[in-house]
Amino acid sequence: MASESELIAAVQAIFESAPHERVLIGIGDDAAVIAQDKGKVVLATDIAVEGTHFNREWSSLFEIGAKITAANLADIFAMGGKPEYLLVAAALPKDFTVAEIQELARGIVDEASKVGAQVVGGDITVSAALVVSIAVYGSVKDPITRSGAQVGDLVIISDLPGASAAGLELLKAGIRDERTSAHRRPVVNYSAARDFALAGVSAMCDVSDGLTSELLHIARASGVGIEIRTDEEIDFNGGEDHVFVATISPHLPFPRQAIEIGRVVLGKGVRINGEMATHQGFRHFQE
Amino acid sequence: MASESELIAAVQAIFESAPHERVLIGIGDDAAVIAQDKGKVVLATDIAVEGTHFNREWSSLFEIGAKITAANLADIFAMGGKPEYLLVAAALPKDFTVAEIQELARGIVDEASKVGAQVVGGDITVSAALVVSIAVYGSVKDPITRSGAQVGDLVIISDLPGASAAGLELLKAGIRDERTSAHRRPVVNYSAARDFALAGVSAMCDVSDGLTSELLHIARASGVGIEIRTDEEIDFNGGEDHVFVATISPHLPFPRQAIEIGRVVLGKGVRINGEMATHQGFRHFQE
Repeated sequence: MASESELIAAVQAIFESAPHERVLIGIGDDAAVIAQDKGKVVLATDIAVEGTHFNREWSSLFEIGAKITAANLADIFAMGGKPEYLLVAAALPKDFTVAEIQELARGIVDEASKVGAQVVGGDITVSAALVVSIAVYGSVKDPITRSGAQVGDLVIISDLPGASAAGLELLKAGIRDERTSAHRRPVVNYSAARDFALAGVSAMCDVSDGLTSELLHIARASGVGIEIRTDEEIDFNGGEDHVFVATISPHLPFPRQAIEIGRVVLGKGVRINGEMATHQGFRHFQE
Repeated sequence: MASESELIAAVQAIFESAPHERVLIGIGDDAAVIAQDKGKVVLATDIAVEGTHFNREWSSLFEIGAKITAANLADIFAMGGKPEYLLVAAALPKDFTVAEIQELARGIVDEASKVGAQVVGGDITVSAALVVSIAVYGSVKDPITRSGAQVGDLVIISDLPGASAAGLELLKAGIRDERTSAHRRPVVNYSAARDFALAGVSAMCDVSDGLTSELLHIARASGVGIEIRTDEEIDFNGGEDHVFVATISPHLPFPRQAIEIGRVVLGKGVRINGEMATHQGFRHFQE
């Protein structure tokens, strides 16, 4: 087993391959220091646990690193923000090798580099199961919350959710082919979230616990009802795709990448093709 | 087992008891949003795992929350910064109750409120062992790194380290009295770190892996040697006290709370009462 300082040295070069000018102090001290303009900062964190969120038999460490990073970046995009800096805290099994942590780090960097974000610090410790917790810091001009949906708005999504959940079912059935990649490493449509934000959506979030669950969040936070009417084959309960769901005034130009699935209405709750939806998210705690 | 949303609701009021004006969006959306002035931001993260960093047989959840928070806050103070906002990511055993997560949250808030910091967001999931990962965001004017020690500087510490390690030995021996509190919940001398920063220390860090380990970090990062000469009974290898160690010019006023233990010299490595020190930190990975 390598020492913590050896592990840090092994990932530092990977994380610092494209340093931002504004990182005044990066990896290796007590904390990172970033130059900051006046404005609004957006902060989020996601923690992923082996056996709950991922499985090393099914997914490579590269995929695991990328997937956890994507969950964090999606949170920032869902606020209309731009992710900039990441902190990575990892609890590693004692037999973890330098090559393994480097593979995990490369997966994190691969996903972060899609949006120009950089790892500036972290922490490493030991654990029985692999745990990776990422915190992300970004900038935002006009934050888009869950509470801005207005009666009359269209409900739009960036992609059809369900590919990750379908991939998980295949993996559970012992199938290891390409159809499972959406679970092992979801492809997050960051550009759609940016389009939605630029188009002026009134509310937005990413689907991490299932579309129904996120629609219920928006309806409750905004004090409105949501009517979904769609012929599309949509998995309303599959999470972790990080599809973006938003509401937008029908008087605004329709975003290029949007799929319309319903309307914001007076009232409360979510009705899907005529039926009231019940809460389906947070499955990790219900199993 | 409560649902994730019930758990979040149960801690939200605890975390938001003293809201900062600059928190534009707090707990409950995809991310938190903070108003920010031009300047420098300081970021750090610490992850703690049941069985590695703490033990629920020995420590209350309140103590565990406070201890993990202290480790994070100490990192920011060690940079000469002021911690402001925290993100808390927790992986909880399935049988965790609402009362238990509230106790953990109260411990976090109790420590954070000592320095005026506030929890603005987080993530909750399930795990076999309890894991808590905190990320902290603060401001800093003149960052104090490990690399600024100058030949001729005095080496100072804020307190005598070793109480946490001694407490751990007692706990391991089955003793549960008050002498173990330094391990269960170390009292971090934040005001000493602030004094050191105001006094103009050239390098600083907090002792999380043992004093020898931190002195070796400073010596290596600064390209100097360190000579420790002391009659004090110092535990050079016990970590987790978060004592602050710093170097300061002998021409500056001596900080009120400082204990002088040595000098920065030409050369490299750390010599303690005449003997070259070897690396002793990172014990989690060596056991």
